[in-house]
Amino acid sequence: MKKHYLLAPGPTPIPPEVLQALARPIVHHRTPLYEGILQEVREGLKYLFQTKSEVLIFASSGTGAMEGAVTNTLCAGDKALVVEGGKFGERFTQICRAYGVKPIVIPVEWGQAVDPAVIEKTLREDPSIKAVFTQATETSTGVLHPVKEIAALVSRHPGTILVVDGISHVGAVELPMDGWKLDVVICGSQKALMLPPGLAFAALSDKAWQFVERSTLPRFYFDFKKELKNLTQNQSAYTPAISLVVGLAESLKLIRKEGLENILARHARLAKATRAAMGALGLQLYAPRAYSDAVTAVLAPRGIDGQKVVKILREKHNLTIAGGQDRAKGKIFRLAHMGYIDPSDIIAGIAAVEMTLKELGYQFELGAGIKAAMEVLSAK
Amino acid sequence: MKKHYLLAPGPTPIPPEVLQALARPIVHHRTPLYEGILQEVREGLKYLFQTKSEVLIFASSGTGAMEGAVTNTLCAGDKALVVEGGKFGERFTQICRAYGVKPIVIPVEWGQAVDPAVIEKTLREDPSIKAVFTQATETSTGVLHPVKEIAALVSRHPGTILVVDGISHVGAVELPMDGWKLDVVICGSQKALMLPPGLAFAALSDKAWQFVERSTLPRFYFDFKKELKNLTQNQSAYTPAISLVVGLAESLKLIRKEGLENILARHARLAKATRAAMGALGLQLYAPRAYSDAVTAVLAPRGIDGQKVVKILREKHNLTIAGGQDRAKGKIFRLAHMGYIDPSDIIAGIAAVEMTLKELGYQFELGAGIKAAMEVLSAK
Repeated sequence: MKKHYLLAPGPTPIPPEVLQALARPIVHHRTPLYEGILQEVREGLKYLFQTKSEVLIFASSGTGAMEGAVTNTLCAGDKALVVEGGKFGERFTQICRAYGVKPIVIPVEWGQAVDPAVIEKTLREDPSIKAVFTQATETSTGVLHPVKEIAALVSRHPGTILVVDGISHVGAVELPMDGWKLDVVICGSQKALMLPPGLAFAALSDKAWQFVERSTLPRFYFDFKKELKNLTQNQSAYTPAISLVVGLAESLKLIRKEGLENILARHARLAKATRAAMGALGLQLYAPRAYSDAVTAVLAPRGIDGQKVVKILREKHNLTIAGGQDRAKGKIFRLAHMGYIDPSDIIAGIAAVEMTLKELGYQFELGAGIKAAMEVLSAK
Repeated sequence: MKKHYLLAPGPTPIPPEVLQALARPIVHHRTPLYEGILQEVREGLKYLFQTKSEVLIFASSGTGAMEGAVTNTLCAGDKALVVEGGKFGERFTQICRAYGVKPIVIPVEWGQAVDPAVIEKTLREDPSIKAVFTQATETSTGVLHPVKEIAALVSRHPGTILVVDGISHVGAVELPMDGWKLDVVICGSQKALMLPPGLAFAALSDKAWQFVERSTLPRFYFDFKKELKNLTQNQSAYTPAISLVVGLAESLKLIRKEGLENILARHARLAKATRAAMGALGLQLYAPRAYSDAVTAVLAPRGIDGQKVVKILREKHNLTIAGGQDRAKGKIFRLAHMGYIDPSDIIAGIAAVEMTLKELGYQFELGAGIKAAMEVLSAK
């Protein structure tokens, strides 16, 4: 018997209600039935993003919406400030370069959060910078960037927009789009939305839509204006990923039923339990001062390969988590607690980590992590 | 009780084996399990496309691969010949314009096929034309373009590639990529592949890959070279649409079990039965001289709105077909017989069309269409 467990930062487990929706006979998208579903989905997404703006939906991976955020708001030769503190920060730099936008990189050590003062100084010194790109949660490091503070300062620059990659964040950790005055928020389906990968989202503020009007970069499939026009008629410019949208309607129902505030509190509690467990095992966080509640990145103990931890977890404990990427490969392992995850999942995950570390010769008191987690989870 | 029937040219019905695969707990894509599935899928796609080339897989609608076919093979200022005989021909023109490629449009009357001699003449007069874009089946008109003849003449021009949109065609009607020397073949998941929409495919000949090397148009998400590199390692550049790829593995198994030759023969028989039925009802085809076996476009009888036919079919007979698009709107209705469709589906569809036409006051002998279809379907 093999039961599979998944504590990776995407894809994340899918609730049975959503899985069943994915298996329904396909509906045609040019029908009142589908248009009714999309109408519901539009409302649900606005609730999730905490915005009055429409949330555009693309049949693509999250990277598609990241590309669209560049190509729909900027022009060739524009300067953009990119917070680069992990693999996904680097992706914005790469996209900018691919389209002739000049990235001004703010290098941030992996595992650390960006200092908003650096952004402020850079924007003040060069007011021609058109956009600031940052992650909310940087998935590759588990870092939480101070988006609220960044937004407060960017919003004082009428010629600059803030683009936030919330792919591993929206629906897991607080990110009120309108409340914080975020200009573009991007998300993907396979994280806190509890769906398979294959849908990307982008919501734009009025300020960002003004940038779209002046943007001249080439685009076709990821054309935000064309997509908005279609979406307001409960349609899409091209054939949508119908089954995923039908699944999304179900996941948004679950989200509204639990309530966003409760969902964020659940993520905070599960993340706190995970961090407490890792601490009790004598392990250090990769982002000790700026951790996100979406994913916990843990430094592998000295002499133990983080990739080995991942491999043993998968092969002996049927648990899939993520290792480190690029320069963090082998150094860390990442336990996510995003989406359809409850305390029992976390307990099972920590137990598997403990048994794996024991097998790898790491010295600690077996059960210490679980005990610390239970203390958090049973606290009022 | 309402049973729903679907004879639209995408999405098409999904076999239960595939629906069940879509509802399986999600697997992580960076695991040997997923890599094994993708390895199988790669072989299955080569079989379906009849090619030795790798078939790239994108999480997107088919339009994404159409865009990629332009941005990965051409440079700004390049000239491209576009066969424009329907909505999807026009899309290639729009994509070329969006990226600064100069389209030389060959206008083809809707409902007619392109004359290869016109392509030959144009290429001879201007050898600097870098690419020819055409549909195999033009979904909006039901036309079959003479791709074999076009390929034979384009292959004699070393500086020109042929890009074939096979979205409503691959797996339904003959299109041997290597045998006919096609340079780029594009497909989508929601047609003959019997899957939900959300996956796009592109296969490139060696000649086309040489064009990729010299192409300088900007691209990021739809980067063919990056995707090829990942695919050969059973991975993808960005998070793949995992559940759809898992479903694809199932649909490719069904395809290999039935056999491509048998599948094409089935489509031909169902299409012939549909055409015979429409003829027996006194109806004319929109593409009387160049019809595709993937979708049959039928002219609505004089005085009857094609959109009304579609609406009554949906509302009273629970059957979804497609109407006409753009300039064909109201003039035609389209019955597809692509993918998971059998004789009983066709019979039910024709009966519903007959009852709808009767309700709309069209004069004909009730049952005449069904009888003609049965004669085809029962023939040895």
